[in-house]
Amino acid sequence: MPVAEVVTRFRVRYAETDAMGIVHHSQHAIWFEAGRADFFRAAGISYAECEARGVLLPVSELYVRFSHSAFYDEEVAVHTRLTEIRSRGLTFQYEVRNAADVLLATGHTRHICVNKNREVQTIPIWLRQILSGGGHIP
Amino acid sequence: MPVAEVVTRFRVRYAETDAMGIVHHSQHAIWFEAGRADFFRAAGISYAECEARGVLLPVSELYVRFSHSAFYDEEVAVHTRLTEIRSRGLTFQYEVRNAADVLLATGHTRHICVNKNREVQTIPIWLRQILSGGGHIP
Amino acid sequence: MPVAEVVTRFRVRYAETDAMGIVHHSQHAIWFEAGRADFFRAAGISYAECEARGVLLPVSELYVRFSHSAFYDEEVAVHTRLTEIRSRGLTFQYEVRNAADVLLATGHTRHICVNKNREVQTIPIWLRQILSGGGHIP
Amino acid sequence: MPVAEVVTRFRVRYAETDAMGIVHHSQHAIWFEAGRADFFRAAGISYAECEARGVLLPVSELYVRFSHSAFYDEEVAVHTRLTEIRSRGLTFQYEVRNAADVLLATGHTRHICVNKNREVQTIPIWLRQILSGGGHIP
Repeated sequence: MPVAEVVTRFRVRYAETDAMGIVHHSQHAIWFEAGRADFFRAAGISYAECEARGVLLPVSELYVRFSHSAFYDEEVAVHTRLTEIRSRGLTFQYEVRNAADVLLATGHTRHICVNKNREVQTIPIWLRQILSGGGHIP
Repeated sequence: MPVAEVVTRFRVRYAETDAMGIVHHSQHAIWFEAGRADFFRAAGISYAECEARGVLLPVSELYVRFSHSAFYDEEVAVHTRLTEIRSRGLTFQYEVRNAADVLLATGHTRHICVNKNREVQTIPIWLRQILSGGGHIP
Repeated sequence: MPVAEVVTRFRVRYAETDAMGIVHHSQHAIWFEAGRADFFRAAGISYAECEARGVLLPVSELYVRFSHSAFYDEEVAVHTRLTEIRSRGLTFQYEVRNAADVLLATGHTRHICVNKNREVQTIPIWLRQILSGGGHIP
Repeated sequence: MPVAEVVTRFRVRYAETDAMGIVHHSQHAIWFEAGRADFFRAAGISYAECEARGVLLPVSELYVRFSHSAFYDEEVAVHTRLTEIRSRGLTFQYEVRNAADVLLATGHTRHICVNKNREVQTIPIWLRQILSGGGHIP
């Protein structure tokens, strides 16, 4: 059964804010990444383990739409879903919500699968199966 | 005469890289912002001066497409253009190139104009004129 | 009874690593800050609440000694202690340990108490009492 | 003739500020690093080239003392000096000044020399000579 959605919760750090008094917009890419890491773990493999096995998934596209500002010390939740598995890439979608369940941001990242020499490769079948909810680390 | 394109050059910092040995993808939003700051200055007003006059332009949308990796200590150039002026918002487009003129990333940011209380406001006419190439700080 | 030590746990984010494959040394200041935030909360007031009441505690000194590298996806624990309360300042000490309890880094931060106009002020008595373990938010 | 002091100039980026309206204190470690990179280059070798030759110099100690706040869009200058060359390590000292020559921060970093497997090694004689002002890349 595929992993439907994974929720990652944390508090906004002071260093993540900027002089406008809100979270800097570059930060959401880092929060998405934390969500993605939890998604992998929930599916059955850590992204660190993927890299150790020669499967790297750099970001080829990043999109974020900001709806409401996030503030220091707020508890935010990143909701992460895997929405596309292609032969050589993945797409994740994200929602960031605050403790009052207000939508702060939505977005997606697209990833291309490369090996340790940064050459494009097909996503290994075992990883496709794990991310689809039916596999195991070989 | 409108400002056509502004080029911002700098070297990649070590802290901007990640364990993949490349620049982390969140960093490009920060580089875009540096490009935007130079665009404002070239047009005739610093963004800092805008904020001092009660005109804030937070990011409402961020898009980055990554073509090639950027590496530590490379000289990169951010090419910034203002592609849309709406009554309450702006759109900027960016290209990031390395010293060999290889395209590393393209993207855009959309901005909404707010006052110091983060209430949406119309972009003041003086700022529209400055950004269009024909105005002065009042 | 004073708060003896507060432990903050989280996983290392990919964006926190650098091209050396380890956590960038600037990151520990941000982890210390996360530890400090939890210390305040454990004592009975969030640092956000302090700021809302006009008590800001910018860092006047930062020291970090690095013993072992931290790696992506590791679970790290920041142990935070308040070691000095002066009339206009505070000192916190920190230890960062990994899941195997290996000491990764130690350090301290010194803070000066200022108001919203960044003028030095005496730490309010209510905050001194809270941080000493015997007070309440007025 | 040894390199006496190297000055690195840049503008404060918005992302470097925090909700206090000033540059976040973790940022100075990144500025020191930019200064160090320029020091290496001025001495005759880029730090990137050092790493390519198997000489890594991770930070073993970081100290920063903050005198005045740094603000968005300010031009700051990092003055970097190499103050100690030991058999297996280096110490750099830094001063950060704004355009009005006000001292914003001082500090130092200590570095340990390791190889690509992160094993401590003696600083190669060619690097010692370059950094002392009398050597060349072998």
